[in-house]
Amino acid sequence: MNLPSKILEQSVEQLSTLPGVGKRSALRYALHLMQEDEQSVRDLADALVALKTRMYHCRHCHNVSDTEVCPICSSEKRQRGIVCVVENVQDVMAVENTQQYRGLYHVLGGVISPIDGIGPGDLEIASLVRRVETGDPYPVEEVILALPTTMEGDTTNYYINKLLQPLGVKITTLARGVAVGDSLEYADEITLGRSIAHRIPFEG
Amino acid sequence: MNLPSKILEQSVEQLSTLPGVGKRSALRYALHLMQEDEQSVRDLADALVALKTRMYHCRHCHNVSDTEVCPICSSEKRQRGIVCVVENVQDVMAVENTQQYRGLYHVLGGVISPIDGIGPGDLEIASLVRRVETGDPYPVEEVILALPTTMEGDTTNYYINKLLQPLGVKITTLARGVAVGDSLEYADEITLGRSIAHRIPFEG
Repeated sequence: MNLPSKILEQSVEQLSTLPGVGKRSALRYALHLMQEDEQSVRDLADALVALKTRMYHCRHCHNVSDTEVCPICSSEKRQRGIVCVVENVQDVMAVENTQQYRGLYHVLGGVISPIDGIGPGDLEIASLVRRVETGDPYPVEEVILALPTTMEGDTTNYYINKLLQPLGVKITTLARGVAVGDSLEYADEITLGRSIAHRIPFEG
Repeated sequence: MNLPSKILEQSVEQLSTLPGVGKRSALRYALHLMQEDEQSVRDLADALVALKTRMYHCRHCHNVSDTEVCPICSSEKRQRGIVCVVENVQDVMAVENTQQYRGLYHVLGGVISPIDGIGPGDLEIASLVRRVETGDPYPVEEVILALPTTMEGDTTNYYINKLLQPLGVKITTLARGVAVGDSLEYADEITLGRSIAHRIPFEG
């Protein structure tokens, strides 16, 4: 793509580093911003910089937060003995949106993936173990492993389980099965197989 | 969507003003930026602000440019007597990419669209007429109307034609017809009809 301006080119270059944004979309964004008034563009730019300069990862659960300790960890209404281990911030939001969970979280910041060069040391695993071990900030009775059902997720589950097992904490994981609203015909065999093996009492 | 942080919420709000970006994509962008190092995010922010503070619209053709007069208008290798009238910057790039055109441009910045409240006064039409009238910066022999084939494009063509006609300049428009590589079967009737009406000598 031959752009008529170096400055435009730089913005397109920068914008296309965003995930899933190609040069064409980046150009569309840049040309759109050129039409906006200067203050709006400055507001956008400031909001982006604020992501790095004014945000925290919660000291306890490593979720993103405006404060050193996030509202979930500091809420007295949560069941503080239960910790749900998730891969990332989006997963916290997904679980929160169900309104079915009242415990706390622990955000790993990824899963173990040797192919991408991500080892246990790059994740918040040691801090999870410490949390269970020391009972700081709150004693942990149950750890729910809610990582993705992928090879990487399974490896991470296995690794964490091995570390937590000796500490005598209860370790659970999400139920896997046919999704609500799905017909059996279209469920994959592994999911269907698991949902048969882990069948539950019928609630009539 | 319930975000865990006001700062994150603000960035998502800002990013989702970009064309075609919803809250979900905006969140993905914001979380991605949180992982980047601070300097990269500042570079992106600066590049966006530069779009407003360091860029020009060329004084003659209104294309975006790093300089007051764009490289196309100031190039001595272009056919300065021919002016191609286009809707926007992307269209300049599209025509340039064909490498078939060596004249100059005039970017209207849109087309007449009463429904969107865009009248002739919002577009660079008066400056086009002045350009033809005064021969400043260069005498104009031919104006090529290369606006989109939509009702708005046609209206704008008609309006410009009416203003330029009395000035005695040659006015042409793009050939319309079946696209190269398209089979007749799938061409719409209007396009196919026009390409028959305006058939050209066969080059054997």
